[in-house]
Formats: sequence, C-alpha cells, structure tokens
Amino acid sequence: MKLRLSVCVLLLLCAAENSSGGKILVWYSDNSHWINMKPVLETLVDRGHQVTVLVPSTSLFMNSSEPSRFQYELFDVDVSFEDLEKIFETIIHFFVYEMDFMNPLEIYIKFYNLMKNNKNITFKFLDGVLKSEPIMKKLKEGNYDVLFADPIYAGSDLTADILGIPLVFSLCFSLANNWERMCGQLPSPPSFVPGAASKLTDKMDFSERLSNFLFYALQDVMIDQIMWKEVDEYYSEIRGTPTSACELMGKADIWLLRTYWDFDFPRPFLPNFKFVGGIHCKPAKPLPKDMEEFVQSSGENGIVVFTLGSMIKNVTTEKANLIASALAQLPQKVLWRYNGEKPKTLGSNTRIFSWIPQNDLLGHPKTKAFITHGGTNGIYEAIYHGVPMVGIPMFADQPDNMVHMEAKGAAVIQNLNFMTTESLRDAIKAVINDKSYKENAMRLSRIHHDRPMSPLDEAVFWIEFTMRNKGAKHLRVQAHELTWYQYHSLDVLAFLLIIDLLLIFILFKSCSFCFKRCCSRKQTKRKAE
Amino acid sequence: MKLRLSVCVLLLLCAAENSSGGKILVWYSDNSHWINMKPVLETLVDRGHQVTVLVPSTSLFMNSSEPSRFQYELFDVDVSFEDLEKIFETIIHFFVYEMDFMNPLEIYIKFYNLMKNNKNITFKFLDGVLKSEPIMKKLKEGNYDVLFADPIYAGSDLTADILGIPLVFSLCFSLANNWERMCGQLPSPPSFVPGAASKLTDKMDFSERLSNFLFYALQDVMIDQIMWKEVDEYYSEIRGTPTSACELMGKADIWLLRTYWDFDFPRPFLPNFKFVGGIHCKPAKPLPKDMEEFVQSSGENGIVVFTLGSMIKNVTTEKANLIASALAQLPQKVLWRYNGEKPKTLGSNTRIFSWIPQNDLLGHPKTKAFITHGGTNGIYEAIYHGVPMVGIPMFADQPDNMVHMEAKGAAVIQNLNFMTTESLRDAIKAVINDKSYKENAMRLSRIHHDRPMSPLDEAVFWIEFTMRNKGAKHLRVQAHELTWYQYHSLDVLAFLLIIDLLLIFILFKSCSFCFKRCCSRKQTKRKAE
Repeated sequence: MKLRLSVCVLLLLCAAENSSGGKILVWYSDNSHWINMKPVLETLVDRGHQVTVLVPSTSLFMNSSEPSRFQYELFDVDVSFEDLEKIFETIIHFFVYEMDFMNPLEIYIKFYNLMKNNKNITFKFLDGVLKSEPIMKKLKEGNYDVLFADPIYAGSDLTADILGIPLVFSLCFSLANNWERMCGQLPSPPSFVPGAASKLTDKMDFSERLSNFLFYALQDVMIDQIMWKEVDEYYSEIRGTPTSACELMGKADIWLLRTYWDFDFPRPFLPNFKFVGGIHCKPAKPLPKDMEEFVQSSGENGIVVFTLGSMIKNVTTEKANLIASALAQLPQKVLWRYNGEKPKTLGSNTRIFSWIPQNDLLGHPKTKAFITHGGTNGIYEAIYHGVPMVGIPMFADQPDNMVHMEAKGAAVIQNLNFMTTESLRDAIKAVINDKSYKENAMRLSRIHHDRPMSPLDEAVFWIEFTMRNKGAKHLRVQAHELTWYQYHSLDVLAFLLIIDLLLIFILFKSCSFCFKRCCSRKQTKRKAE
Repeated sequence: MKLRLSVCVLLLLCAAENSSGGKILVWYSDNSHWINMKPVLETLVDRGHQVTVLVPSTSLFMNSSEPSRFQYELFDVDVSFEDLEKIFETIIHFFVYEMDFMNPLEIYIKFYNLMKNNKNITFKFLDGVLKSEPIMKKLKEGNYDVLFADPIYAGSDLTADILGIPLVFSLCFSLANNWERMCGQLPSPPSFVPGAASKLTDKMDFSERLSNFLFYALQDVMIDQIMWKEVDEYYSEIRGTPTSACELMGKADIWLLRTYWDFDFPRPFLPNFKFVGGIHCKPAKPLPKDMEEFVQSSGENGIVVFTLGSMIKNVTTEKANLIASALAQLPQKVLWRYNGEKPKTLGSNTRIFSWIPQNDLLGHPKTKAFITHGGTNGIYEAIYHGVPMVGIPMFADQPDNMVHMEAKGAAVIQNLNFMTTESLRDAIKAVINDKSYKENAMRLSRIHHDRPMSPLDEAVFWIEFTMRNKGAKHLRVQAHELTWYQYHSLDVLAFLLIIDLLLIFILFKSCSFCFKRCCSRKQTKRKAE
C-alpha cells in the first residue's frame, strides 16, 4: 500500500512538471466545507496552478489575512459578524436542544423560518459579488479556466455562466439530495436510495420506503418554496432574462461528491459524479511530547478520543457532568476536547484539552474508540484509521451520518438529550470490547484505501481535466434536455394507453356490429319464415 | 501523456512485486470476446497470478495447443467443428445478406429460430463442464480465487456459485442491455439510454423514444422466451433446486463493460459497473518493410486502411468489384485485407493483403481513414489513434456501433446491400476531406486517453480487488433484494392512492351527511312553521 501511495505521489509530481499552470477561481465557503476544499487547492498550487479564492468581508471561519499560497479576492458584504454568529447559534440551538422536543409540524415551521432568514443573508453575500461592478470586472479580466465551488454557498453557477467558464462542484450532500436529483439528474429510486438526512439506510421495509418516498416529496416541495422561487427571481434579475437556478446548477461539468462506498450506501450515479470522500485524510503525525506520554500511560487499555467538533464549543454543565461520569468509569485514558468549565465528576483517567490533533490521535496505535458528533470529516478520519465510534450527533447531517456508521456496524449512537451516564459508558465499552465494531471499522478502512486512486488525486484529476478540455460535456447525460414526463416515458406510456384503448374500442365496436348483423339476419330469416 | 503512461507501468510493476499470486479461473469464450480478455490475463500473469482457461474440445478461434503462459483446462463437448461453423455461417448470412430484405415479423421468426439452435449448442458446451464429474472435481480442487467470464458464454455464474468463488464479468453488451438491466440492476431509462443494438442514439424525438421503449419491452419478452425459461430449467436441474439464472448473474461482483464515454453515450450506472472500453489498444509498432514502402509511396495523400474483420473473409464477386472501383477513384493508397479472388476493377492504388497489422496501420501518421465492418475492437483502435471511419456494418452490434460513431461525428455509414461505387467513394472522400471528421475522431481519442487510469489497469485492479477482498459486496446495490414493483415504489404509490381515495370518500360522506342533516333540519323547521 505504501509503495502504491509513493508511486501515486511520483505520478502527481511528474504530471506537475508536465502541466501548464491554469487559473482556478474558488467560490467562497466556510467551516467543514472549506476544510475539504483546501487540500485540493493546496495540491493544485503544488502542481503549478494559480488559485484565487473569493472571500467575503464577514466570515466565521475563512481568513484572508492568514499567510497562504492562494490569492484572495475580498468582497464586501452588508452583514455584521454578530448577525452571522447569531443566526448560526440559533440554528445550532434549534437542532441540538429544541428539535427532539418538537412535533413534526413545529419542526417544519421553525426550519422554514430559519431557512428563510438564512436566505436573506445568502442574497446579501451574492450582492457582494454579482452586484459589485468592480468585483465582476476583476473576475472577467481574470480569465479563469474553471470555477470550483461548494454549491451550499449559492451563486457560483450563475457566476460561471456569466464568466463563460466551466464549473466543478464539491458537495457533501443537499437535503434529500434534492439538488443532485432535480438539477444534476442523479437517479435516486426512493426504494433503496435513502434521502440525505432521512436517517434511513438502503435496507428499508415497507414503512421505511414509504417514509423515504414522502421525505423526498416533502423536501422537494419545501426546497421549491423556500429556495428555488426566490433564487430564480434573483438570478433572473441579474441576468435580465428568466433564469432557472436549478438548470444553471445542472450545467456543472463535474460533481465531486465528498462520499464513497465506505461511508455511503451503493447507489446509481452518472459519469460526471465522482465520489471523493476523505479528501483531507492523511497519515498520523507524532503527537506533542506531553500528549504522547499521557497516551502511553494508558498501557494495554489504550485511549478514547472525544470531541464534539469545532462548531459546538461546550455543552451544558449538567451534560458535561454526565459525560465526565461515564468517562471516569472506563479503564481507558480519555482525551477530551472541551472548552467549558471543568466538570466536577471528571475522573483521573480523563484529560481535557482546548484543542487536540484529532487525526494524529485517531491514527495512534493506542486508540480504541472515537466519541464524535458525527461530522463527515471526523468520521472519515476514523474510517481512514479504522477506529470504531460512539456518535453523539448534534445537527445537520450528523444524525444521518451516524446512522450510516451504525448500519455498517462500526458505531453505536447516543442521543445527547436522552443519554444517561450508564448508556454512554456501555456504548463506549461495547465498541471497545465487542470485536465486531473494530473489525467493521477495519473493513471500512480497507474499502477506503483499496481503490484505484486516492480521493485527493481523483478530485485534482477531474478539475484539471475540466481545465484542459474546457469542460466535460462528454460526461453529461441527455436527461438534462428532457422534461420530467419525458424522462419517465410518461408521454410514451400515455400514447400506448390511448392506442390500446382505441384498439379495444374498435374491437368492441366491430364485435357488436357483427353481433347485430348476425342477430338482424336471424330475425329477418325468422320473419321471412 | 507519455510520462503518465510510463509511471502507470511503474505503478503496476511495483504493485506486482507486492501482490501475492492468486489463482484465476477463466470461462471459455471465443473470437473478439477472447481478444478482449487476453490482454487482461497476460497482465495478470505478469503480476504473478496463475491463470487457468477452460477450453472446449471444439472451438472456432480458441487454441489450447498454442504456446502460452496460461494453463488450459480442456473439456469435451459433443459438437463437431463443422456443426459449429455451419451455425456460425448461417447466422452471419442471415445478418449480412437476408435481414435487409425481410419484414420485422420475418426477422423476428428467423432470429428466434437461430437463437433456439444456438441455445442447444450452448447446453452441449455446458454439459461438458457442469455434467462432467472429473472437470468439476478438478475445478473444486483448484481453489480458485475468482472466476473471470464473458457472460455471452453461459454457465459461468452457476459454476462460480457451485465453487463458492467471486465472479467478475467482462461484457460488451447484451441485446437491449437485458442482462445488465434485469440481472445487474443497471438503471436504463428508455428516454435517453438507447438499448444496445437499437441503432438509436441518446438524442431521441418522441417516435424514437417510443421505438426504444418498445425495443426494450419486446427484447425482454423475447429473451425471456428464448433464453431464461430453458436456462433456468437447466440450472435448476444441475443445482437440484429451483434456480433463477438471472438472479445468479446478478451476483457477479464486478461487471467490466467494454465501453467508455468515447464510444458510448453517457448513462446512469452502478458502483460495480466499470467502463473499460479499449483494453486491447496499444501504441503502433513499425510496419513490415515492404508495407512501409507502399505506405510511404502514398506521399501527401496518405493511406486508407480497409478490413471487414476476421469473421467475414470475403464478400461476393459483385460487391468486391463495386468496392474495388470506388477505392480505385481515391488519390490515397489503399491497404485492403481480403482473401477472395482479385477483383477485376482493382485500381493500381489498392493493394490486397491476406492479413494486415491493423493497429500498427491505424497508428501510422499517413493513415487518413479506416473502412471497417464496425466491430468494437476495430472501432476502439481507430478511436485510440484518432482515425475517422467509413462503416460497412454487417451483423450483431456492428450497425449499432457505427451509429454511435456517426452520431459523434467521426464516421459515415454505408449499407453493404444498397451502397454504390459512387456512394462509397463519396463517403471515403468525405471523412478524409471534411475536417470535422478528423477533429471529432481526435476529440474521441483525447477522451479515450485522458482518464485517471488506462482501461487495462482498471480491469486488472478490479479483478485483483475481488481476489484480495473475496468479492466486492460493498459495491452491490440493495435493489437486488427488491421485487420490480418495490423497486419502482409501486406498492408505496398504491398505498398512497388508497389513502387518498379513502380520505376523499370520508370527506365526501361527511359533507353529504352534514348537507343532509342541514336539509332535514330546514325541512323540519319549515314543517313546524
């Protein structure tokens, strides 16, 4: 495996000598989306390309003043950092602490309002690029070869269209895969392709298939109501002609989906959909000295790594005590990334850190389990290193992600609002002591590593392909040119039905005509007799 | 590109050092199917694996006495070479000289009978393996890691099942993609995925979509009648339990489809379908001295390469004269592979050869056009080297293949039964003089070469993957476990329809009840008044 990796590096280095540098424009993004795009961009710079990243004046995680090998194109947005943070915290609070106690209608209404607020912010960001003459002038004069974007941050498709350059998407998922299905034409039979965030697997009984069917339908209606109508209006205003945002999205040359069959369930896909889950994964580096000493002190029992991700800094004091009590009952040493007040119940085996080198810890031979909020980046690092998980999912795709890991036998799920000290302790003990969890994690790790090309190399290949060939039209299915009823052959079926009915009608009429003739002859004969 | 290829070779060589040799059993095949499997097997031997090929005692093209690096497992079949040749010639004659003059019903009946005869031969071949105790004993004792087969030659799925080993298919296509769709669960919406051999493209108007829909349906019925019923009976007899051959076929771990988006139209597919068209393609080697002299004598006009493949040795004298007249009118020199009597009209620019090094000629810089019968192997060599084509398709997939090349702007089609000297001459002149044909051929060539991995490397990777991991179950969609109505969510739709109707009924009844109550009150009131 090492040999293959080193030859892959050689392959890229050699090709770098060959490649004539192109110009890549990167649409703004944030947090885990940006974490995933960065290694691709770093590699593109290594390979002699020039990378220019659009950065808004207000951003939670992007920082254009950091020393970097990228060029930054700053644009003004009429949103304060406080407003952005407030919206973000409201969303998190809803998902983490409110949703579990609401009925479906309340969830729908709250979610609808949150998304509506979020959309207003989206348009202010869009104004900063599309309504700014100096920015658009600069972008046009930049003569970029490709626009690279996470479509979660709207507007890249319209910008690529205006600039007349190819577009490559990097996407984890859209709700119920609405964009991939409706705009990208990705076939997704609801009978065995669970909608993203549905918390279903590919093995569904009748009621689950019904749920998934309704999940697709309801999300499609909601997204149409919340998103497409207003985005279409905005796009049409900018372009000065009626414009469908979904149609523009469907013009993307390549969709790099940040998943693979280690994490996702196998499903139908299209030639321009490439599965590059785990782009940011890499081998573990040595730990800082004091951390290594703490890890080594665990002896044969090993360690447990615990973090709820960068977006949730702390939990309530009550929850922190509950968690600390559970951790204290483990024979393992625990490294907990936590920024809150030290819990009273903290055991001597648990050490709190304000930051941990998560990937290096997950790759450490002493690591027995990973307690995670279930973000895809963390899960992918655990898959890469073959570490079983306990998931305490919080929001967005996290509950669904953990359902995937549970279905593949590599994780146990705990609910933050309903878990107890005992249930958390037992869950951690289970993934450590029941060998099947480790075996399944190692199986997923083998699937992750044993593929023709690393996800990073594959992503870089297809971005460069798009630049070299000014797009990737030969991978685009003709389905984009069909209406929904043509796609499903409903017009053909209707035609065949009409023909059938006509034939039956003619047959019926002919028979009844013959029958009448026959009867009338007999009657005439009888009368004559 | 050269650098990338050489690093690919390095990658394979290094991995060869790493790979511990496995044991590969190869199902018998013949002609172009065998040509495509051979380079894969040669590479597998290079990489330290042991390859054992099942060879029938009667075969048109396979020869176990040739010196080879493969081991051969010979099995007896109760079919004479003459019988095999006769059936083969009857099929060819029907396709080449009869079909054009028949109506659809006549074609259907003739085809049905031909396939029925062919199936009897198939069962005799199957008897040679599955009903031969010594052969089955040897195969069981062989402890093979994988069975590699072209499913056109039936029985490999049952054998893999009996031996309990993984199965990798190498397939060009099945008629109307029936096996890929019905057994492999490959999604194929008839609205934009033309059925194999339908002579349609992915751009279809209403009548073409109707044709394609009916083509799928009719072929499914015909294949069910001709094939599945009797094969199921045969398989059930061997296994001693009711067995569905299609279900067994669906258990294949990997389907290596011998096509790619240079030749085929982009379409939906599944994680265990890999597109490896052009496996046998390779750079051109220098020509024999006298042939090189003849080629060089063409000067700036260049040469035309003409062959109708290994399966059609000669055409009628009349056709040969017509072709020779057309070739005589070209300014190019022509190299014609032909084994018949020298045509009277042969021009001085045309030289006849009993055999030509086709790939080396197509890769020669002087080559301007390729006149071909439209077999996939020849077409792929032309794509590899970027040579425009004139197709004179004969039978099987050839007419459909040429429709693909015509739709992609790299070929002109001629009908052997209806072409004239002038039409053939004009077709050749068009592909040489109209620059668009060469440009399109070069575009297809770029698509062919510019992919993350060569088709040969990809095929080898997935066979080895299957051996390493004892299958590739993580790539298998859950659709295999669903009935057809579950797959299409018809049970869910029926349920929702019933609920809807019930609700409407309840609403109607409630309204009519309220209305009646309301009316009766009014009447009582009036009476009281």
